[in-house]
Amino acid sequence: MRRQHTRENESLRGRRAFDFAGNLSLRARQFVTRRARKITFAAGHVVQLEGDICDSITLVETGEIRVYKVSEKGREICLYHVEAGEACALAIGCALTGQRYPATAKAVGSVTALALPSSLFLELAAREPALSRRVAHLLAQRLLELTTLVSEIAFEDVDQRLARFLLHETDGTAAEVRSTHAAIAAELGTVREVVTRALEWYASNGWVSIGRGVVTVEDRAALRSLFPRETP
Amino acid sequence: MRRQHTRENESLRGRRAFDFAGNLSLRARQFVTRRARKITFAAGHVVQLEGDICDSITLVETGEIRVYKVSEKGREICLYHVEAGEACALAIGCALTGQRYPATAKAVGSVTALALPSSLFLELAAREPALSRRVAHLLAQRLLELTTLVSEIAFEDVDQRLARFLLHETDGTAAEVRSTHAAIAAELGTVREVVTRALEWYASNGWVSIGRGVVTVEDRAALRSLFPRETP
Repeated sequence: MRRQHTRENESLRGRRAFDFAGNLSLRARQFVTRRARKITFAAGHVVQLEGDICDSITLVETGEIRVYKVSEKGREICLYHVEAGEACALAIGCALTGQRYPATAKAVGSVTALALPSSLFLELAAREPALSRRVAHLLAQRLLELTTLVSEIAFEDVDQRLARFLLHETDGTAAEVRSTHAAIAAELGTVREVVTRALEWYASNGWVSIGRGVVTVEDRAALRSLFPRETP
Repeated sequence: MRRQHTRENESLRGRRAFDFAGNLSLRARQFVTRRARKITFAAGHVVQLEGDICDSITLVETGEIRVYKVSEKGREICLYHVEAGEACALAIGCALTGQRYPATAKAVGSVTALALPSSLFLELAAREPALSRRVAHLLAQRLLELTTLVSEIAFEDVDQRLARFLLHETDGTAAEVRSTHAAIAAELGTVREVVTRALEWYASNGWVSIGRGVVTVEDRAALRSLFPRETP
């Protein structure tokens, strides 16, 4: 399950963390190899908690980390996923500004990564134009995505946001979203009951069919019609 | 009226746009002087519209630019304000990624600024470490602010968000917020009626008093009590 899926992510899928830095100099690559620590997170491992000091930057090699906010009442909303070849923009942002981590980061499946102390990461970025460009690009990309997320949460109802989510997850050939209603609710910042109600409404219209742990999109055009202005 | 007011902003208030670049080299300063265009926007002038190509970066010298999203139905939500000494992080983000401007930017009062073609701005940032650091820091700061905004919109009701807004606007010595209910609604992404209803509820409790175009905070502690976990 994946939100905020961008062309940027697409181009990086399957690459390794080392590629985060693109055209690093040989000297810089040796520096990373020498100073970074190889780590593995089991599925569900909490990589970073709200309030943590960001003293290291995690470069994901394989797997995926979900970054989300948790409310006082335990509701969740997904900000983005950090995929192979990426680092967490918020962790870098905290390292840059000295602020504490403002979200929760959790391994989706098992994750392998390189961890580099933040001070060394920033030092390296200051020395290596390729890394500095990559950092600016990553921060910019996440900023643009969060701008979209702000307007979706502020202006769209759950029916629309759920449709957007299902269309996004079934982009391409797959029509099935393998996920529980609770997990979908956690992506959207709402509760299970609201997702179930909306899905049942879609199903009664024949737009989706609902199975155990799976939602199948039957009528993409109908879901898209919930966004009149965007339909060509 | 000002949202997402940060220490970063504080430290820059009253400086000039040229300071955006901090310790620019003499050569770079001459470059900016030669290539930037001086511009003035009247109050209310729309500096950038959603969908615009970001072919120039505006460095604000005096005044303030409000950056906000507009819904299909004309509702607004404020993302941040660009103040003296700053540039718009989303405009830089678009220049970096080639995306189109995803919001609306409007001069709050009259604004004087320097406009530099985006390609030259990026070229300069690539050459000048001080500017490159400043760009990364600005993008990071806005990303962190939008993360907070996402969780406020997703998890807090309007009563809470309005209280947060009033407390923020009266931070320091002033107890008065000079603003119409419609303008407050546009900051929070809601409609006037909802703001009026919440203010009347506060007023009936003696927490605020409401005048013509002004809200006076009478009991900060009571407003703060709407966020139980944050109160010491």
